[in-house]
Amino acid sequence: MLTFTPTTIKTIAFDADDTLWVNETYFQDVEKEFNALLTKYVSAEELADKLYAVERTNLALYGYGIKGFMLSMIETALQVTQGLISTKDVQQIINLGKVMLRQPIELLPDVRHVLDSLDEDYTLMLITKGDLLDQETKIARSGVGDFFKHVEIISEKKPRDYQQVLDRYGIHPDEFVMIGNSMRSDVLPLLEIGTYAIHIPFKHTWVHEQVQDDGFTHPRFMKLQRIAQVLERFETPIRKS
Amino acid sequence: MLTFTPTTIKTIAFDADDTLWVNETYFQDVEKEFNALLTKYVSAEELADKLYAVERTNLALYGYGIKGFMLSMIETALQVTQGLISTKDVQQIINLGKVMLRQPIELLPDVRHVLDSLDEDYTLMLITKGDLLDQETKIARSGVGDFFKHVEIISEKKPRDYQQVLDRYGIHPDEFVMIGNSMRSDVLPLLEIGTYAIHIPFKHTWVHEQVQDDGFTHPRFMKLQRIAQVLERFETPIRKS
Repeated sequence: MLTFTPTTIKTIAFDADDTLWVNETYFQDVEKEFNALLTKYVSAEELADKLYAVERTNLALYGYGIKGFMLSMIETALQVTQGLISTKDVQQIINLGKVMLRQPIELLPDVRHVLDSLDEDYTLMLITKGDLLDQETKIARSGVGDFFKHVEIISEKKPRDYQQVLDRYGIHPDEFVMIGNSMRSDVLPLLEIGTYAIHIPFKHTWVHEQVQDDGFTHPRFMKLQRIAQVLERFETPIRKS
Repeated sequence: MLTFTPTTIKTIAFDADDTLWVNETYFQDVEKEFNALLTKYVSAEELADKLYAVERTNLALYGYGIKGFMLSMIETALQVTQGLISTKDVQQIINLGKVMLRQPIELLPDVRHVLDSLDEDYTLMLITKGDLLDQETKIARSGVGDFFKHVEIISEKKPRDYQQVLDRYGIHPDEFVMIGNSMRSDVLPLLEIGTYAIHIPFKHTWVHEQVQDDGFTHPRFMKLQRIAQVLERFETPIRKS
């Protein structure tokens, strides 16, 4: 199971949404309310398909984040109702998005303890994608922002985006591990540029981030079930003495 | 008029929108089309006031940028028509925003020449606020991105935001000048943290950025009419020899 030992690692980077705190759950809750608004026009399944198609089309223009999600929900609603949606319901979609933007941050179990413990021996970094202001205020509201020496909010998580972050801080791939819930965004691009990566699945994954990973192995990869298990791997008696 | 000499300056930072390329003009063009959609419900003046009020209320949630502007236009339209706007017109507002997001970049006169000339003797930096992906793609489309050693896309331009940028690169305030079209965003916060600043007004200024500056003087401030005049100040025979 464990396929690497962390002897060379100096910097531990974390994804934020669904790695440190709950996020996708809120998107799925809002999708349920969105569905309830449109239930007389379209089935839940068809609506989900249409919304994802609109989101995917808009991704290159809007990027990741709640504002783009709001605009895509409005556009989807106009399409599936052939313009028959009430303007009251359009306002309701905007309100759903605003609730998401104000959502309190619910840290996942053990996150604070894990960051606090690792902070003594490693440089901690946070690397997330989404709307700039939204991600910044989430980090501030999370109460764990001070553990991170560097915070990078980036528009994409492709290999070259990570390579830019490593270059910016002069980090060698052997010294770096990324921890996150998405194989597609937090693991595969890192393995491509030669760093280490740890996958910790969250209970919900956005369809856009879904990658089949059962039985995936790689000398610089491991999969864990809970973030607390990171400590078992990285907080060795040798390093702590 | 000239109130400082650049002998200590090593880094020249530029704002992007309406300093290097046209931006506010596009917002104002879209506002005209937005007004045309709603002309039977509300006067142009009242609409502008309502839109600005909605934008200002949403700023803390949405931040700066086109996606927030689109959402605020939709919300304003719902309000001023008391829900009577057609869904076709809601889609039209979304389309207006998408056109803005794809707008070609129109460099202001002399920008490329000025950057090319300063690049030899100074470290050039770009500091802009707005949507992350939108600003990144604008920089890429501008064709002048390679002149900048550092690009900082930030959510606010308050003194502490600039201080963080200086700290990140270990820059002393004496060594730094910011050049931009907004007194509020590109000049006053910089003077507060002790750097130099140059104001180059653009023909249009968003009401949110308007600050009365006639006759403003400060030992570390100067106002120029065109970006080409930066060269006259910074490209001295002594430095070039």
